[in-house]
Amino acid sequence: MDSAVCAALAIQDQYQIAALHLNYGQRTEKRELECYNQLCMHFNVKHRLIVDVSHLSKIGGSSLTDFSIEIEDANLDNTEIPPTYVPFRNANILAIGVSWAEVIGAEAIYIGAMEQDSSGYPDCRLTFFEAFQQLINTGTKPATHIKVITPIINLTKTDIVKIGIELGVPFEYTWSCYRNNDIACGKCDSCALRLRGFSKMGISDKILYI
Amino acid sequence: MDSAVCAALAIQDQYQIAALHLNYGQRTEKRELECYNQLCMHFNVKHRLIVDVSHLSKIGGSSLTDFSIEIEDANLDNTEIPPTYVPFRNANILAIGVSWAEVIGAEAIYIGAMEQDSSGYPDCRLTFFEAFQQLINTGTKPATHIKVITPIINLTKTDIVKIGIELGVPFEYTWSCYRNNDIACGKCDSCALRLRGFSKMGISDKILYI
Repeated sequence: MDSAVCAALAIQDQYQIAALHLNYGQRTEKRELECYNQLCMHFNVKHRLIVDVSHLSKIGGSSLTDFSIEIEDANLDNTEIPPTYVPFRNANILAIGVSWAEVIGAEAIYIGAMEQDSSGYPDCRLTFFEAFQQLINTGTKPATHIKVITPIINLTKTDIVKIGIELGVPFEYTWSCYRNNDIACGKCDSCALRLRGFSKMGISDKILYI
Repeated sequence: MDSAVCAALAIQDQYQIAALHLNYGQRTEKRELECYNQLCMHFNVKHRLIVDVSHLSKIGGSSLTDFSIEIEDANLDNTEIPPTYVPFRNANILAIGVSWAEVIGAEAIYIGAMEQDSSGYPDCRLTFFEAFQQLINTGTKPATHIKVITPIINLTKTDIVKIGIELGVPFEYTWSCYRNNDIACGKCDSCALRLRGFSKMGISDKILYI
């Protein structure tokens, strides 16, 4: 839902959008790809790129990609980095995004990371994205100017639901559950954050839960 | 040859080494993989990881991965970024390296980039690697401390040959040619830089040239 809201915000900012989807060997790959295709149809996206980064699953270290590590039930008060953390995932994602952006001449990369209302991943913090901007400035051609835009970094899930509803984002084409492809578990960190967002807005989430 | 010298330098620095190989859909993938395996045998490397990043070839924009763009003959006095530049390649490589390093607990990443005696790629400059260090510091777990080490950044190919010979690096297991897998062309930028290095040291290069 974070990416979908980012796409709507990029369109609102007058950008023509190009959509990057990543399969990283996560448990919910099938459902996330379906959502990507549905959202591309909805937003009428012409430039599409699907990239397999299953080496992140080969490298392991996360319960999202290593099926021998169990997905824990939510503990939103936890201050430690949870086992769902995929090491340095957003650096991998952004590096691919920048390579693509430099070739197609895109001027901005929108990424739906959230720092406040999140699971505390180190690569979801504003300081990380500021460092990445510096990396782009030093590591691309002099004629290339690509901005990393994190429009929802300081928002809560409740804000995301509110903005999404205002912009007509089809949340039924988004998937948050870490565990399943078909019916959301309602209990993992990601489901808990999503449900809290909808609940605080007093809006019902159209996807199915166990 | 740059990576092979870096491996020898890491061993000299008392590190136990882990070797990452990347296939990015480049023309000389087959030969580079053979060299990787031979060097791993030579250096007795236990931790090995081969990653397919052929999305870089799908993204295109470089004569190394887009076979419809011709590889030009060398022009070492050229001050423009040549068509062999793979957009933001080293950011992609390092991001994978950091993900792996964080999982296996590696403390340093050696990368054989050269700024002075090179083709002028933006992601081969010291400022780029300094920015990447900052990115690692902000985007990994607090307990993680990974240093990016660029031991040959300010050296010339002649220095590389000299150090390699001193450390017993088997240069016959290294490949530089951008064009071919079997017999080096001797004319592309990369062959020209390599040959100049050997020539200035008065040492013969054991690989075959057309």
